[in-house]
Amino acid sequence: MKILVINPNIVLPMTRDIEATARTAAGPGVQVDAVSPRIGPSAIECYLEFNYASIGVVDTIARTEKEGGADAYITACFCDPGLEAGREITEKPVVGICEAAVTYARMLAPNFSIVTVLDATRRLNEFRMVSYHAEKLCKSIRPTHVGVLEFRENPQCGLDALFEQSRLAVEEDGARCILLGCAGFAAAAREFTEKLGVPVLDGVTLAVRLAESLVQTGHKNVATLSRAYLETKTMKGFDITF
Amino acid sequence: MKILVINPNIVLPMTRDIEATARTAAGPGVQVDAVSPRIGPSAIECYLEFNYASIGVVDTIARTEKEGGADAYITACFCDPGLEAGREITEKPVVGICEAAVTYARMLAPNFSIVTVLDATRRLNEFRMVSYHAEKLCKSIRPTHVGVLEFRENPQCGLDALFEQSRLAVEEDGARCILLGCAGFAAAAREFTEKLGVPVLDGVTLAVRLAESLVQTGHKNVATLSRAYLETKTMKGFDITF
Amino acid sequence: MKILVINPNIVLPMTRDIEATARTAAGPGVQVDAVSPRIGPSAIECYLEFNYASIGVVDTIARTEKEGGADAYITACFCDPGLEAGREITEKPVVGICEAAVTYARMLAPNFSIVTVLDATRRLNEFRMVSYHAEKLCKSIRPTHVGVLEFRENPQCGLDALFEQSRLAVEEDGARCILLGCAGFAAAAREFTEKLGVPVLDGVTLAVRLAESLVQTGHKNVATLSRAYLETKTMKGFDITF
Amino acid sequence: MKILVINPNIVLPMTRDIEATARTAAGPGVQVDAVSPRIGPSAIECYLEFNYASIGVVDTIARTEKEGGADAYITACFCDPGLEAGREITEKPVVGICEAAVTYARMLAPNFSIVTVLDATRRLNEFRMVSYHAEKLCKSIRPTHVGVLEFRENPQCGLDALFEQSRLAVEEDGARCILLGCAGFAAAAREFTEKLGVPVLDGVTLAVRLAESLVQTGHKNVATLSRAYLETKTMKGFDITF
Amino acid sequence: MKILVINPNIVLPMTRDIEATARTAAGPGVQVDAVSPRIGPSAIECYLEFNYASIGVVDTIARTEKEGGADAYITACFCDPGLEAGREITEKPVVGICEAAVTYARMLAPNFSIVTVLDATRRLNEFRMVSYHAEKLCKSIRPTHVGVLEFRENPQCGLDALFEQSRLAVEEDGARCILLGCAGFAAAAREFTEKLGVPVLDGVTLAVRLAESLVQTGHKNVATLSRAYLETKTMKGFDITF
Amino acid sequence: MKILVINPNIVLPMTRDIEATARTAAGPGVQVDAVSPRIGPSAIECYLEFNYASIGVVDTIARTEKEGGADAYITACFCDPGLEAGREITEKPVVGICEAAVTYARMLAPNFSIVTVLDATRRLNEFRMVSYHAEKLCKSIRPTHVGVLEFRENPQCGLDALFEQSRLAVEEDGARCILLGCAGFAAAAREFTEKLGVPVLDGVTLAVRLAESLVQTGHKNVATLSRAYLETKTMKGFDITF
Repeated sequence: MKILVINPNIVLPMTRDIEATARTAAGPGVQVDAVSPRIGPSAIECYLEFNYASIGVVDTIARTEKEGGADAYITACFCDPGLEAGREITEKPVVGICEAAVTYARMLAPNFSIVTVLDATRRLNEFRMVSYHAEKLCKSIRPTHVGVLEFRENPQCGLDALFEQSRLAVEEDGARCILLGCAGFAAAAREFTEKLGVPVLDGVTLAVRLAESLVQTGHKNVATLSRAYLETKTMKGFDITF
Repeated sequence: MKILVINPNIVLPMTRDIEATARTAAGPGVQVDAVSPRIGPSAIECYLEFNYASIGVVDTIARTEKEGGADAYITACFCDPGLEAGREITEKPVVGICEAAVTYARMLAPNFSIVTVLDATRRLNEFRMVSYHAEKLCKSIRPTHVGVLEFRENPQCGLDALFEQSRLAVEEDGARCILLGCAGFAAAAREFTEKLGVPVLDGVTLAVRLAESLVQTGHKNVATLSRAYLETKTMKGFDITF
Repeated sequence: MKILVINPNIVLPMTRDIEATARTAAGPGVQVDAVSPRIGPSAIECYLEFNYASIGVVDTIARTEKEGGADAYITACFCDPGLEAGREITEKPVVGICEAAVTYARMLAPNFSIVTVLDATRRLNEFRMVSYHAEKLCKSIRPTHVGVLEFRENPQCGLDALFEQSRLAVEEDGARCILLGCAGFAAAAREFTEKLGVPVLDGVTLAVRLAESLVQTGHKNVATLSRAYLETKTMKGFDITF
Repeated sequence: MKILVINPNIVLPMTRDIEATARTAAGPGVQVDAVSPRIGPSAIECYLEFNYASIGVVDTIARTEKEGGADAYITACFCDPGLEAGREITEKPVVGICEAAVTYARMLAPNFSIVTVLDATRRLNEFRMVSYHAEKLCKSIRPTHVGVLEFRENPQCGLDALFEQSRLAVEEDGARCILLGCAGFAAAAREFTEKLGVPVLDGVTLAVRLAESLVQTGHKNVATLSRAYLETKTMKGFDITF
Repeated sequence: MKILVINPNIVLPMTRDIEATARTAAGPGVQVDAVSPRIGPSAIECYLEFNYASIGVVDTIARTEKEGGADAYITACFCDPGLEAGREITEKPVVGICEAAVTYARMLAPNFSIVTVLDATRRLNEFRMVSYHAEKLCKSIRPTHVGVLEFRENPQCGLDALFEQSRLAVEEDGARCILLGCAGFAAAAREFTEKLGVPVLDGVTLAVRLAESLVQTGHKNVATLSRAYLETKTMKGFDITF
Repeated sequence: MKILVINPNIVLPMTRDIEATARTAAGPGVQVDAVSPRIGPSAIECYLEFNYASIGVVDTIARTEKEGGADAYITACFCDPGLEAGREITEKPVVGICEAAVTYARMLAPNFSIVTVLDATRRLNEFRMVSYHAEKLCKSIRPTHVGVLEFRENPQCGLDALFEQSRLAVEEDGARCILLGCAGFAAAAREFTEKLGVPVLDGVTLAVRLAESLVQTGHKNVATLSRAYLETKTMKGFDITF
């Protein structure tokens, strides 16, 4: 089984970190590779970047499908860019890391909070809570106010802010589970889980497990457009066909 | 006052038709121009094309802003591509044609139905009903199964199908208002209103009126990102800066 | 175009202030007049007065229609008394000032708070949030505890309380837009917008713009009862026919 | 214990019928009287009449309170006019017949349908389903298209239409309980219950029982405005004080 | 009329207290008896005990029905164990004490809070708010952190904690009514009502009144399974038939 | 890894069939065993049996935990009896087959329908749709009117009815995915998927995959009660301790 993890931003060291995290999660015989799209933003913190990142994810899935394809795709940014369109162009499972974290949180705890990056990012989280019918489960969305790239430059400062917001979510908002709201936060999951006494979930790890199990079911996603219809679709100014 | 209507697909004759419709709606002293983006799909009927169309709309707003800007922007496809991101890059009003139709329907009738293009398009309408908190008002979404471009090639056949679905929405679903679910349907509004005895709303016309009145309020939209922050945003592979 | 603004309370100096505000908002060629009903309460702060005020609004619309009518009607109290019944007796647009403020807030900001008069008034606001499907957008409803007439007697004290609650809505409740919850608060809109850095919306101004644009659409409201049916309706003890 | 049933329309023979129904429901030692307000409509089938009927109910409660009062009040039209305002002017229980029918239906069946008068009346029912948080329980609202007064003139024809819509609600909409949507339908409850095999509920009967039990709890309703505040309230053109 | 109050826990002194409370509430000619089931938990504070308590309630109703039956049944623990299944095995009214408290709160106040036992108990309350469509009415659920049996051992300490949480619900959460979240809290209702100035509701008392009035309606509950079907049902390892 | 599948009914041949299905789904190195509880109903078609089945599931989990435990538990009846209580007594994953089917359906299709057993069973499905926040995704719940045991006696007749309802869900209700609403329906999944062209999901298979992946995450469920607290819990008349 081959799983392709798409880091929708184009920061390659981050893609390598995500690949390492994803490979640790994979079962035996599962090949996991991570890539960044040819095109897209360096960070995804607002609707603007979410829109561009969606194109990068769609572009990567379409090209991979033409070259033989993977068995499943993961969109590894916590706003899950390209998820809906990706499912229109391939029958293979496409899974988002926010979607995966929400999926497991439903079974592990009665509610959860999200720790995210910026205020602008919070709106993307709110959008996803609605699209996953998880509004009532989500007690709060707390930004660290440390940007995605700033977090990479000064990880200890970022982790401190992340822990502080996670702790406040548990103690003040009554959260019984924490969703780490960025693919760059994966390293915190284990330590925070121990410190806080509640599950602290990393979407990258969980998306790999969920994608594996989806492949194993043998079911195709049914949001796919027909091949004949898809081939009529072209995008002026974009080097892409479906 | 200058209003820029962006037809997110790149079919120029359709853009001309939309411009004509929009100009008819405009008040005295209001200059309305319609353009297609440099880049984007030829029709927007699914999430895939919605994603690419969003880029075209954002691209057009960003370029226009650099060249002096308009006083308001309209995204003239019924799934309102680029609406949220557009509001992040300009303080000027950005209005969607679906949004405008829903806005006026709230005041003209106790509920409404949408007549749309294809089954795939219906999912975009459902998404917008949720994002505009209009789920409870929407009695049904009925596709004609006539594609956007097919409709242009054979308008009478398209109009017949459109009328049939509008009639069924009124008679079987209890709709008291019809939203025309495509910028290409504008011509039907007046005739269908008379025939069906309920308001049949064209979003292009209404978006022009709504954008005018938003400009007149003098209020800026508050979803805008700060200029300093916006200038840090770049998109690899896209010829765009903010 | 003639727009009749109905101040549902019977305090004429307040009606004159509302008229001045409304006229400032009107476009060229639009005649705006404000009246108080023949009958009704001196302030509207609870369900009791909301009920009586509804009668005054209906009475005013019915009489005006008999005398030639206006092109649109505005009910200028923030609980929008008589809105639904008004739409049953005339095909012309009837707009509420709360409705107008909510309409524009949807496009200007991701959420809003309402600053209102008393605790009893808050329940009327809650009712309107439900009837306009805006519950999820409304972060809080904050009373100043200064009554409508007390506000007129001591405006500076009222404005101070109003600003304090607006500020708390922004800083503590996360509101990104403020709706001024009384027709008597209109004067605060501009100054508060500058001070708070978020749109502070006055419903009177916005209702005029919205009513104008509704008239321009040419669409009739479809909640209207048939003339034949309406003429069978009489109200014992009320000097009114329809 | 004295319960005052207010028939909000001013058709006295109907008030007498309602009184007879209500007295049958009353427990030992409970005195039940029915009155029509001094002022109000002859039938209540739309928002317009709902508004005027609310005044009649409020007026009747206020006058009765001044003359010694009853122990509980019932507003005996299925849209429950004056319910909220009535609770502001007396601490005694005020109960609506729609409210009572919904209250018992919650315990007798997993869902229900309403059989109502006209299409215009349906909107009042929809409003009440929202205000009682019963939207999800209500499978359908089916009008007979026989007006309130027409029903009194030709009862057999009205009952036939009523039975037909009740039957369709059970057989086609899956309703497991029927709420009779007019105080004038009371006589049908027993017979329809037997014929249809599901509870067919008359709100008048049930409101008497509910009001009795509310009085027995000894609890005051807490929506009441303070006496001092209430006494400042006057309504120009209405012969009423509080 | 005979009403059987089932205290789902097996602490007999508590059953006697509940019986005393229930008898005080009963009307003339109504015989009220309270029993504990043959089987079940000593306290009900979590889903685990809720499940076992449901069996005890079902068992008690089934046995009572075989021996002649009561006219109505009350399940007297605030999570209302056995309510749904009880209604499947008898056509007589089955009422829960949480259900009764919510029923009356709807008419006495615009909202309410629940004071409950433990954090684990709160989840049962949340479940019931959903099943009674009362989520929007419930401002908060506040545990005292004093267990059911601990409360019996040290009542003054328990009452102090209960009052403190009730007071906080009113002052900080804006509750206008308090629901006492345990059958063991009944004694506090009167005193707390006076001290807090809002209705403080005891479900045991209210369930008796509600059950009485349900019996008086003469309506049967329609969730009942047919006798023929019910007799096919057996439970291995349980000494029960239906 | 050891997964214990609990068939909550006590029909051993059915338990053997479920075990066979479950083993087919399991990954390498995963030992799957199926058992029936010591106690419980022979079929689960209504709330009554759901309540008794919950006890059997809790009993089985508690006993298994005392004897060394499994790594995960599955409750293999489509109403997921004992799910919430099971999670209170073990930190290991407990998964329901309805929960698993809903989990995968969210990613495979935009909506789904459930084909279930009887009308009484439908209410259990409705309850689970609410508890899993999946009400909006579920287009319809269609009973075959063939009981659980009748289905085993005459499988072809049962399968025909099942296919007919599945087909109607797709063609009339617009379902894009079918959830098989009984552990006894597993054999139909593959054939129906091919015939209907949409995913037809068997919860037993999917629950095994989901439980495996939950174990692999290493996260404990956080609804668990503390051991000290749990040990105070006893159930009179039940041979069980925790």
